[in-house]
Amino acid sequence: MDNIEDYLAGTRQRVEEEIRALVPADGRHTGGLYQMMLDYPLRHGKSLRPAIALACCRALGGSEAAVMPTAAVLELYHNAFLIHDDVEDRSEKRRHEPTLNRKHGVPLAINVGDGMLAMVMRPLLDNMRTIGLGRALRVLDVVARMARETAEGQAMELGWIADGYMPRSLCEYTRLVHKKTSWYSFIAPLLAAATIAGLDRHGAQRVGRLGVPLGVAFQIQDDVLNLSATSDTYGKDGDGDLWEGKRTLILMHAIGSADPAERAHARAVVAKPAGNGEEQHARNAADVEFLRGLIARHDSIGYAQRVARRYARRFEAGLHALAGDWVDSPHKQFLFALAQYTVGRAA
Amino acid sequence: MDNIEDYLAGTRQRVEEEIRALVPADGRHTGGLYQMMLDYPLRHGKSLRPAIALACCRALGGSEAAVMPTAAVLELYHNAFLIHDDVEDRSEKRRHEPTLNRKHGVPLAINVGDGMLAMVMRPLLDNMRTIGLGRALRVLDVVARMARETAEGQAMELGWIADGYMPRSLCEYTRLVHKKTSWYSFIAPLLAAATIAGLDRHGAQRVGRLGVPLGVAFQIQDDVLNLSATSDTYGKDGDGDLWEGKRTLILMHAIGSADPAERAHARAVVAKPAGNGEEQHARNAADVEFLRGLIARHDSIGYAQRVARRYARRFEAGLHALAGDWVDSPHKQFLFALAQYTVGRAA
Repeated sequence: MDNIEDYLAGTRQRVEEEIRALVPADGRHTGGLYQMMLDYPLRHGKSLRPAIALACCRALGGSEAAVMPTAAVLELYHNAFLIHDDVEDRSEKRRHEPTLNRKHGVPLAINVGDGMLAMVMRPLLDNMRTIGLGRALRVLDVVARMARETAEGQAMELGWIADGYMPRSLCEYTRLVHKKTSWYSFIAPLLAAATIAGLDRHGAQRVGRLGVPLGVAFQIQDDVLNLSATSDTYGKDGDGDLWEGKRTLILMHAIGSADPAERAHARAVVAKPAGNGEEQHARNAADVEFLRGLIARHDSIGYAQRVARRYARRFEAGLHALAGDWVDSPHKQFLFALAQYTVGRAA
Repeated sequence: MDNIEDYLAGTRQRVEEEIRALVPADGRHTGGLYQMMLDYPLRHGKSLRPAIALACCRALGGSEAAVMPTAAVLELYHNAFLIHDDVEDRSEKRRHEPTLNRKHGVPLAINVGDGMLAMVMRPLLDNMRTIGLGRALRVLDVVARMARETAEGQAMELGWIADGYMPRSLCEYTRLVHKKTSWYSFIAPLLAAATIAGLDRHGAQRVGRLGVPLGVAFQIQDDVLNLSATSDTYGKDGDGDLWEGKRTLILMHAIGSADPAERAHARAVVAKPAGNGEEQHARNAADVEFLRGLIARHDSIGYAQRVARRYARRFEAGLHALAGDWVDSPHKQFLFALAQYTVGRAA
């Protein structure tokens, strides 16, 4: 796992430089907008998405210079999503610090996210000069699709929470994750990088599809960490998912395994409406305690981890089939290490 | 004023068709996202921005087909801004109906706005096929700049409110309006339309600059309507600006004209912090009543209307200087009628 951490750290540094170059340093008459834009990106996130884009492009023979602007765009998008997601979930902590909504209030946080979404157009248009018109347009298409898929996934989950609906099958769950997580975190970085490296449409899509199972493995592990890690190692609100009523595979399994009486109670708890944006949480401490107990009794975390490992292996097998003839390199090794990293990471 | 209303109504119909074609009708597995995206655009807004783009492009000899996708994009942006603005201001009414945040809650409303911002890339890229690569890229640049300027303006105003700062000069006020209103409502529609019609960069910029004074006239009239119109004709929350502590020219004038004791009290009232997003309003009914009285005693609405008319005349003079040799047409007439419409409109 050392190598992967080194690779991520190396990418992080270059992405931060790239983002600093994209965001104007002069904040005169802009209400501190650009300083706030840099807040999340400079909190030392994982830089996972840009690292995947960089590794994929270079493993396929593309250059670092060609992919870095797009990698930075993906990181900016990710951080803009996080800002809006933190507002939507009323989260208090992100990467060990107060969320932007906590620091500056909801209105400014929404606007900072909007501003970041406005910053991505320039580097994507400038791509035309470095990778040519055709590839640059295909990358723009990937990013546009990514933004739509993510909004659709977010709408699905928020709609389920608003309707008190809990998905019942792994298929329903993975359809949600495909949109809300896999697309922007894995499919888009792989697809854009393969495009930049020069693969044709069909070839790039085969690479992009590897992001589907990887996203499921990643999201499940994220939900596991939310429930098992302490706030210290995790950097977000502990048990936040249970308070929010997030539709996780862990909770689905616990409810599906419960006896009829407990199941009915659990369904009622997760169906509590989140309200119209004023009160803090729909569920109380007793509700969260009850769900925690249910999850423990049915070893739902263990179940979720087994499913995550299955999807990680699926990604690994797909990568083997596809990348067998790629020249060996640290970049290819990074991609192969992702399977283990995704389900083994502690943050 | 009849002609301008007809022109707006005609544009509205065509823009609605264009937007319906852009937004997928199939809502399966998208949590109702696309239906919610159509909510504001189908509430019969003024369609002022697309009408300006259409009129400007056609007055300059460009075709309706060439400009309509961009006009629809401007209307989508406008509505996405309105959705996020309503969340940021905690508004309850928009175009005589409950705001999206009121209907579906803050989280879904934020996400619908994000989804709309993701929809605009496709038609702007498709522009390449209809107006050619060079013009399409310039229009993309205009839209990217517009999104940034608007976020900057919004950050300025929210920052002033958060800091309890009230601008003191007309110059400070117009700098804010330039960014938060003029850019997306007037400069961008004129600049994009002139580009699509075939003007070179310099010529298009001269047309775009007409939007600067028009935006100031429009914003002042908007603030006048908020205070003088009833909720019935206006379609938004009555006196909403005073509750929100919005930095309007009217309020600036009232505070600037007050005697020292009243001025100190007024400054304290508008400096009340808006809080971290939980409580409804920082100001109470007595505060709003006090500000209302101050505005009435100093005829601040009359003052603001005079300033608005001055800026409208400035727009008119600029248009005369620029459009003297344009062929006469209903489109050119619409542009000339904008000066009167902007300061005379009742909604």
